[in-house]
Amino acid sequence: MKNSVAAIVLAAGKGSRMKSKKSKVLHTILGKPMLEYIYDVLDQSNAEKIVTVVGHQKEQIIDKFQNRSQFVTQDEQLGTGHAVMQGEEKFKNYSGHVLILCGDTPLLTSGTINSLIKHHIEGGYQGTILTALQQDPTGYGRVIRGADKNVISVVEQKDATEEQKNIKEVNTGIFIFQSKILFELLHKIQNNNAQGEYYLPDVLKVMLENSLEVGAMQMKDSTEMIGINDRVMLHDAQKAMQKAINLAWMKKGVTIIDPDSTYIDPTCQISQDVTIHPMTFIKGNTVIEEGAELGPNTTVVDSEIGENTSVVQSSVQSSKLKSGIQIGPYTHIRPNCEVADSVKLGNFVEVKNAKIGTQSKAAHLTYLGDCTIEENVNIGCGTITANYDGKQKHHTLIKKGAFIGSNSNLIAPITVGEQGFVAAGSTVTKDVPSDSLVIARGKEVVRKNWIKK
Amino acid sequence: MKNSVAAIVLAAGKGSRMKSKKSKVLHTILGKPMLEYIYDVLDQSNAEKIVTVVGHQKEQIIDKFQNRSQFVTQDEQLGTGHAVMQGEEKFKNYSGHVLILCGDTPLLTSGTINSLIKHHIEGGYQGTILTALQQDPTGYGRVIRGADKNVISVVEQKDATEEQKNIKEVNTGIFIFQSKILFELLHKIQNNNAQGEYYLPDVLKVMLENSLEVGAMQMKDSTEMIGINDRVMLHDAQKAMQKAINLAWMKKGVTIIDPDSTYIDPTCQISQDVTIHPMTFIKGNTVIEEGAELGPNTTVVDSEIGENTSVVQSSVQSSKLKSGIQIGPYTHIRPNCEVADSVKLGNFVEVKNAKIGTQSKAAHLTYLGDCTIEENVNIGCGTITANYDGKQKHHTLIKKGAFIGSNSNLIAPITVGEQGFVAAGSTVTKDVPSDSLVIARGKEVVRKNWIKK
Amino acid sequence: MKNSVAAIVLAAGKGSRMKSKKSKVLHTILGKPMLEYIYDVLDQSNAEKIVTVVGHQKEQIIDKFQNRSQFVTQDEQLGTGHAVMQGEEKFKNYSGHVLILCGDTPLLTSGTINSLIKHHIEGGYQGTILTALQQDPTGYGRVIRGADKNVISVVEQKDATEEQKNIKEVNTGIFIFQSKILFELLHKIQNNNAQGEYYLPDVLKVMLENSLEVGAMQMKDSTEMIGINDRVMLHDAQKAMQKAINLAWMKKGVTIIDPDSTYIDPTCQISQDVTIHPMTFIKGNTVIEEGAELGPNTTVVDSEIGENTSVVQSSVQSSKLKSGIQIGPYTHIRPNCEVADSVKLGNFVEVKNAKIGTQSKAAHLTYLGDCTIEENVNIGCGTITANYDGKQKHHTLIKKGAFIGSNSNLIAPITVGEQGFVAAGSTVTKDVPSDSLVIARGKEVVRKNWIKK
Repeated sequence: MKNSVAAIVLAAGKGSRMKSKKSKVLHTILGKPMLEYIYDVLDQSNAEKIVTVVGHQKEQIIDKFQNRSQFVTQDEQLGTGHAVMQGEEKFKNYSGHVLILCGDTPLLTSGTINSLIKHHIEGGYQGTILTALQQDPTGYGRVIRGADKNVISVVEQKDATEEQKNIKEVNTGIFIFQSKILFELLHKIQNNNAQGEYYLPDVLKVMLENSLEVGAMQMKDSTEMIGINDRVMLHDAQKAMQKAINLAWMKKGVTIIDPDSTYIDPTCQISQDVTIHPMTFIKGNTVIEEGAELGPNTTVVDSEIGENTSVVQSSVQSSKLKSGIQIGPYTHIRPNCEVADSVKLGNFVEVKNAKIGTQSKAAHLTYLGDCTIEENVNIGCGTITANYDGKQKHHTLIKKGAFIGSNSNLIAPITVGEQGFVAAGSTVTKDVPSDSLVIARGKEVVRKNWIKK
Repeated sequence: MKNSVAAIVLAAGKGSRMKSKKSKVLHTILGKPMLEYIYDVLDQSNAEKIVTVVGHQKEQIIDKFQNRSQFVTQDEQLGTGHAVMQGEEKFKNYSGHVLILCGDTPLLTSGTINSLIKHHIEGGYQGTILTALQQDPTGYGRVIRGADKNVISVVEQKDATEEQKNIKEVNTGIFIFQSKILFELLHKIQNNNAQGEYYLPDVLKVMLENSLEVGAMQMKDSTEMIGINDRVMLHDAQKAMQKAINLAWMKKGVTIIDPDSTYIDPTCQISQDVTIHPMTFIKGNTVIEEGAELGPNTTVVDSEIGENTSVVQSSVQSSKLKSGIQIGPYTHIRPNCEVADSVKLGNFVEVKNAKIGTQSKAAHLTYLGDCTIEENVNIGCGTITANYDGKQKHHTLIKKGAFIGSNSNLIAPITVGEQGFVAAGSTVTKDVPSDSLVIARGKEVVRKNWIKK
Repeated sequence: MKNSVAAIVLAAGKGSRMKSKKSKVLHTILGKPMLEYIYDVLDQSNAEKIVTVVGHQKEQIIDKFQNRSQFVTQDEQLGTGHAVMQGEEKFKNYSGHVLILCGDTPLLTSGTINSLIKHHIEGGYQGTILTALQQDPTGYGRVIRGADKNVISVVEQKDATEEQKNIKEVNTGIFIFQSKILFELLHKIQNNNAQGEYYLPDVLKVMLENSLEVGAMQMKDSTEMIGINDRVMLHDAQKAMQKAINLAWMKKGVTIIDPDSTYIDPTCQISQDVTIHPMTFIKGNTVIEEGAELGPNTTVVDSEIGENTSVVQSSVQSSKLKSGIQIGPYTHIRPNCEVADSVKLGNFVEVKNAKIGTQSKAAHLTYLGDCTIEENVNIGCGTITANYDGKQKHHTLIKKGAFIGSNSNLIAPITVGEQGFVAAGSTVTKDVPSDSLVIARGKEVVRKNWIKK
């Protein structure tokens, strides 16, 4: 228990520079809200309890993350010390350590936080501040170190002397404290500063006045501390993350033609010898197998793409594609499809809630919805599974080796038997027996020398 | 009249490095010809008259901008002084000030021009030169200042001494003069220089010889003066403008995932909490309302996109879309469409000159042209409004609650009444009464054990 | 013969940092394998014989390039000297000069190689090394020059003293030798170095010991020497090449809206006043004529695009398009199409193995495969040429002035005569005489007050 770690996440601020009706910490980067990045870091650091301090737009945050955190409310914005104070009740019976993080620093890594925890616990400190070097420290609280190089205080921009303003070591806003001591000393800090706020770093000063041990650790990559305040910074953080993810996949043997226009969520898995063409989005829990080729202009969400399958100028959602499949250009695979080996789908084809068997083809202008298509089926151009009768959806079954002629309608529920043949232009309402032909056409009437006028 | 401002715009040059049959100043940046940027600046500076000096490819320019400027022709290219001279006739009875601008500097802002006008008029100068600092001044005319820091002349690159070549303050080519004095003194400049040309800046020298007051103002952002000479510079200017526009929208609360592949014409309006995905083009007089989501790979031209409407992988032209609409992927909305709230159009659907009522849907492989579709209509997959009979276009009306089955043809002119039901695969030529079913299919004939060989 | 030049290309390395089942030198940049860039340089330098030393994944390389090179195998990787040694047999009767190149330096230009050959032959050297200045020389062999500035040896990174490590002139790995001397002296080099390998540059030392003339030439642009070791470097090289190609076309009068997302293979030809919108891929032996407009999001492969033809949001493969044609958005032109002047194809249209005559149109949701369409034909929305009967493909001929109504099927083989008219919704199986109407529809049956429930 003594070495256990919990966390308070500060997410009460207004984020007014975002100019948004959405809470700042819910804005997403590569599909994940900023705040979730912090929760994920804390999970990876084995935080045993997370308390988030919310204020502005708190309902949105609580609604989204009720399974990831407990919540306390800060009604007035009276400074970071005051914010942390709101969590006191939740730590009454807690005697471990408590991390203090901000909800708007999505580039923070668990590596850094784990180092901080280790530094704090192994150093036997009662409180430890995470600092960073910033080439341009303007706006940040400066870290003041004493003659012995120990941190003695943090001075906010507005309270800093000209000399202090030249200090490049800044407060990241990230701390870890012995929980009991934190909440005891928080009651002793004052708000006699330029902003009239209770500053959390002032706890460090009180600690030193009480002869407690204050630690400090400088983070290696100061970009990790960057807090997102507007959409420009949101983009910058996304770009940094996108670049790092793409670089890592390239090093692992993935060819990415244009990392600047390739967007891979951190939740995706990609094998070696995959090629990703420009303007491709790989999202959610997607897995791409060896030799697959995606893009250009392709979106794949929550799907599995098998070996040597190619997806060109297409969209795939929540579906499983096996090996050697050719998708596109201009195909939309909507959720709940299972596509077997060597299938071809392309050229203005939409598929939804469908199983498609090995070697089957639907190459042009086709809609396949709510259906099972077995192997070696040829779906002619312009085929439509009419799955909706205005009231409910029905299922179509096309058995192996069947041939569906161009521009046919299959009015579900319906079954086309093995080797069944639907003549082009037919609207078929009854089951087609195996090895049978069905034809449903108007009679051709020719009017010779019919003059158009 | 004394403080009124008119302008001469120089656009007679050949622009041979553009390697184009199109006049250099007609090449566009974000949809607007370079020269139009200058006219827009002059409009914002309340120029009461604009005279454009044209030469090479003059017909193209006059044809395009006859409503924006008067034109005079410079037949021979004898220098900027000679070019301005061609406008003399147009200013015979004019006693205000005359701005001299170039037609190929699209980054110039009205803020800078207004400052120049103010500086010139309030300073009581007879002529004022706009200068700029260039880190690399090579190629530009250098501004020579006297002991009292006043401008005494401009020396062209080819006439400059080595010492003068080190001067970083350059002539932007932009001036404002008291009109009467300008045209009087222009007659006195010489062409005894390396190029044998009449240089406009030499007027300044003549002014000083005549003890007239010469002013000078340095522009703040020297990129504004950049003249476009080839397609590389055209791209650079476009990129600079694109970046500035996107940054401004981000600061106002628009999420732009990739500013490098987002192209927003300066004429567009975008509300907060709009999200723009990569490779999106927003052009002309487009207005995007709050919460809308555009892209990726989407083009919207001269259209209104309502609140919370999303347009994915689609094109929209000259149409009005209300709120909560889902468009795409792969939808083409051609001109003159009005789409009501909560409509869905997607997956290989083309719409043209159509009104579509609330909650109606056309989700797959459909063409809707020249039609009115009321609310709550379900347009089945593969529906076609056959609006063209080979001679003219006809209208289709589908009343509320109607259901059009898959792969149906509606031969216009035609009306489907309220709650009318067209069975899948029907080609319908006559009006469908309300609450009625129409079916037009060939009879299904099954040939069992029909053997394919 | 004495001044003739041959080459040995080193391509035996494992390229393990590529993490690939594909040979490193077969990875492509703008559609061309890295090794092919080297072969192309050698062709342009009139190399009369090329011998490639292969090892890892040699079958892939030999299979791909059996017409471009002879091959010898290096079974063990014992250094570059050892690699060159494997080629000895192939040069037994050769008394000219032999270039040594690496297979993984795709940015190398024939200009540089031609300069090297000239420098070597005109200088009368027995061996000449190509060197380069690298700001960060880490990892490269350093070039050691004597008091007279002549090259006396190359020292590998692992064998270099601290002082030698500061040398910025490095070995490019590129040499030219008098062939007889090379193979004679190669037998005399040792492997008593840190790596225990036979280093090719050690031949230079042996030459000097034998009082032979050693030359050296420094390349102008040191990026040309960069060897590709992983996918990040592969991308960097592609980006450099892409940038250079696009810049060259812009200087020649092509408007490229976004060079970063425009990919033009080095094998393409583009005329002036062509406009290329973002995310456009121009590949293979494609020729684009004056005034054409491509993109956005368009791919053109091995095709001709005529004057003023526009291709928007579409793909074109192995086809010839004449002038004034409008393609797209969302059109797929598959191989072997010939499209005449002023044709329109657009909006979910797929064309394959088709001739389409002047002024003809297929504007919506259409498939045209294996057909000849003469001039002034109107192909209605949803038309399908049913070219496949489940066994073989058949041809469709539509003669001039014909009108094909919406949602028609033309069951090939079939001919529609001049001015023939196919009524909408017809499935046509027999030839349509000229000036005739064919209609094949089910009878419309209306069931009034049909109640849906």
